[in-house]
Amino acid sequence: MFRAAELGQTTSKRIFKSRSPELRQRLLEAQIHLSRNCDFGVMIDFAGVDGAGKGSTVNMLHAWMDTRLMTTNAYGRPTEADRMLPKYWRFWRDLPRRGRIAFNLRARYSTPFLDRVYGRTTDLEYIAELKRIQAFERALADDGMLILKFWMHLSRDAQKQRLETLESDPETAWRVNKRDWEHWELYERFVQVAERTITETNTNYAPWHIIEGVDENHRILTVSEILLEALNKRFDATGHLPSPEVLVDKDAFEVKDTIVDKPEGHVTVFDTLDMTASLKKANYQRKLSKQQRRIHLLQREALNQGRSSVLVFEGPDAAGKGGAIRRLIPTLDARNYRVLQYGKPTDEENARHYLWRFWRRLQHGGHLTVFDRSWYGRVLVERIEGFATENEWRRAFAEINDFEDQLVESGTILVKFWLHITPDEQLKRFEGRKQKPFKRWKMTGEDWRNRAKWYEYEEAGHDVVKYTSTHISPWELVPANNKNFARIEVLQTFGDYLEKALKESE
Amino acid sequence: MFRAAELGQTTSKRIFKSRSPELRQRLLEAQIHLSRNCDFGVMIDFAGVDGAGKGSTVNMLHAWMDTRLMTTNAYGRPTEADRMLPKYWRFWRDLPRRGRIAFNLRARYSTPFLDRVYGRTTDLEYIAELKRIQAFERALADDGMLILKFWMHLSRDAQKQRLETLESDPETAWRVNKRDWEHWELYERFVQVAERTITETNTNYAPWHIIEGVDENHRILTVSEILLEALNKRFDATGHLPSPEVLVDKDAFEVKDTIVDKPEGHVTVFDTLDMTASLKKANYQRKLSKQQRRIHLLQREALNQGRSSVLVFEGPDAAGKGGAIRRLIPTLDARNYRVLQYGKPTDEENARHYLWRFWRRLQHGGHLTVFDRSWYGRVLVERIEGFATENEWRRAFAEINDFEDQLVESGTILVKFWLHITPDEQLKRFEGRKQKPFKRWKMTGEDWRNRAKWYEYEEAGHDVVKYTSTHISPWELVPANNKNFARIEVLQTFGDYLEKALKESE
Repeated sequence: MFRAAELGQTTSKRIFKSRSPELRQRLLEAQIHLSRNCDFGVMIDFAGVDGAGKGSTVNMLHAWMDTRLMTTNAYGRPTEADRMLPKYWRFWRDLPRRGRIAFNLRARYSTPFLDRVYGRTTDLEYIAELKRIQAFERALADDGMLILKFWMHLSRDAQKQRLETLESDPETAWRVNKRDWEHWELYERFVQVAERTITETNTNYAPWHIIEGVDENHRILTVSEILLEALNKRFDATGHLPSPEVLVDKDAFEVKDTIVDKPEGHVTVFDTLDMTASLKKANYQRKLSKQQRRIHLLQREALNQGRSSVLVFEGPDAAGKGGAIRRLIPTLDARNYRVLQYGKPTDEENARHYLWRFWRRLQHGGHLTVFDRSWYGRVLVERIEGFATENEWRRAFAEINDFEDQLVESGTILVKFWLHITPDEQLKRFEGRKQKPFKRWKMTGEDWRNRAKWYEYEEAGHDVVKYTSTHISPWELVPANNKNFARIEVLQTFGDYLEKALKESE
Repeated sequence: MFRAAELGQTTSKRIFKSRSPELRQRLLEAQIHLSRNCDFGVMIDFAGVDGAGKGSTVNMLHAWMDTRLMTTNAYGRPTEADRMLPKYWRFWRDLPRRGRIAFNLRARYSTPFLDRVYGRTTDLEYIAELKRIQAFERALADDGMLILKFWMHLSRDAQKQRLETLESDPETAWRVNKRDWEHWELYERFVQVAERTITETNTNYAPWHIIEGVDENHRILTVSEILLEALNKRFDATGHLPSPEVLVDKDAFEVKDTIVDKPEGHVTVFDTLDMTASLKKANYQRKLSKQQRRIHLLQREALNQGRSSVLVFEGPDAAGKGGAIRRLIPTLDARNYRVLQYGKPTDEENARHYLWRFWRRLQHGGHLTVFDRSWYGRVLVERIEGFATENEWRRAFAEINDFEDQLVESGTILVKFWLHITPDEQLKRFEGRKQKPFKRWKMTGEDWRNRAKWYEYEEAGHDVVKYTSTHISPWELVPANNKNFARIEVLQTFGDYLEKALKESE
């Protein structure tokens, strides 16, 4: 079965670079079309051989697509409470809503599969588990869910080679552990159970796609193309394909820059930053590897100790929050982090205190949660746009401090980053976005309207630092005119927080 | 401070009977007005002396009001996952939405209070905890939440007497345990900390009301009146009080009975029931006490073993589902049960598979969840009213079986009751509802429209039994023309299930 995925297919960097921008663009179009005009959800599962790039493919899709419209669910050991409920409780809980995409890692196939590989269950028991999986997939597909399953494959030799290559480079040796080799020893057994799994559950409503995992460029292009094709086929069936125009907000390119002059006496905490701080590319690459390795190891220890982290990113549009977050992701195990961006509140959220939608997403047990914009919206955009009354946003400072105190008290490592840029730098980046097709969608008229209020935002940001930079949870102000500098600052600072917190709890 | 609540105030049965119907009616009006026209939530906390009727007051309010528009949150020991999150995580999670009422037992005051009584914390530490509570209440009140707190009081002698009275009657002795007496020994200390608590947290935005807990009639009337007054005061401030008409659906009293004749060849599983089965009042009272005691003890054991139960109630309108459930409630600790009725789905629910809203409410760890109507709506009302297509409701049988299999497999004790009545009995009960003011609101034109489709519903019910009465989760068909008979049947059957399940797991 897997012979066809052992051809050693690779995609050159050149081809990848020439094809990925359009693919990326079309994936985004499809994703936004799905969210705006379609009434079905999408569930995508990744399974397969260790080292075949399940996690890195998800990370890449995360970087390519709109994170507000998708979630990644990666399942670790069930908690005490989970174990008292039906096994599928977690999978039901995490079902994507219509219009959204969920990427699943180590989901419903994982435990039954490994139980069978290790011989903890009989073949009959395994078949019964697969039947349960089928019933689940069937029920969701009947309800309209688009289900895709990717089996990431590596030949026995390729897996060995991959592990050896990683081990031989001191920069990547940390990625390999003893368990990887144990799994490799069981390769034949693994492939045998895999064949059985795919044969039994390769249905028309939840098909498997076997992906050759040797080459990163190849697998990301292949997965993206299959996903795009499946989406388009479904769009076609419902009568309309997405068009590139859905993405482009006309205002984004027609509005004139109306930023006002700096008001007299406008002095903020951001004036103290050295906005010329920068880092050369060679230096950056070296430091990036170093910090990523450091965070990976620290984060592994944090997981052992059950210490969760919450990272908050705020700052002007185009300050590079997303880029900094994407440099952090590769250091993490996809099971243990979640990047959250908040769009329009749901009606359940609207019906409660504004902090409720943040409380409800808190994670425990060593997880990392990244808030790409956060509860500070209350005292930034809501303040400036008048969505919150003065009374509301003024008291929010104390409410937020109280919330953060409780987070820190419970042992959570909280790091708050404010990435700052100058108005000129923002203008340059806005102009740059117009050029790259997969960045065009990011621009909206909103960005220009926010920019027009630059100094109001800076003042609000100043108040944020003034009232919520406490000794318990200080703000980390990062000059971000130079992306390299800002990214390393973020990684290094987070590493320092982790190191300190883990040392304290020793 | 508590002298004013040691007057031995009682309310005679006669006075209670004369005042409660109107109070009940007005509470309901207020509750429905709140849900339909108001944009604030209501949070009501019960704390105080053991045996002063916290749980029974909540149970009574549960019986009086519309359970669809309220929840009871009672906090036991935090789970492993809870402990990794900020302490207030559970309280935030359970915030009532605007328009809804939450009753809290053993909530945010409980652990800090007992820690202080037992001397596990210092006075300073306690004050810090109370400040945190204040900040929480303040934030919610600022957001519009109406917060009321009831301190249920008993004098030292009254508490002793209450415990002794319960112990002396073999019918109620099971209600008293060793821990109750331990608490009683600490009475002075308890009252001292209580005074401190109330003094420090008796704010205008979250006031305490001290209630004399000696007499059940007195405390339920007092609590209800305070609640009603607070609601009305708030309604008044927003410009409109509820009117009795909001409750009464004109259709309910103007529509003519249009039940069709029994179609030829209409034979269902319900024809096999002996609909004349009945039970005399004296017999009923005796059996009721016996079964309630039995379930209380079994349920306590189930809690020890962490065995959860799910009870499903289905059957025609006015079959007595609510009445049967209310006979079960007094046997339970308010911390460990939840009665769920499902109204209109929220947008988060609408955006997913129809079973999602049931999965998401599953409880673990020995909890009892009662579904007053359930997922069977898919194959009953949705089938008959055409809200689900034939394909949808036909495949629902298999989906439901699969869901229930998983519940049972995970160790949940699942009991499904179908309470059945004859069309004549239903008519009699509908007519009866017109008379009692606090029952009038229950009647809607919908009831008559459903009644007109009596035989369609019976046929759908027949299919429900046919396709979903499996050996793993059979239906318990209960002839319910006689309420006494049906209630005892329900209690006895549930007791049998519990007994069998607990014996098996020994």
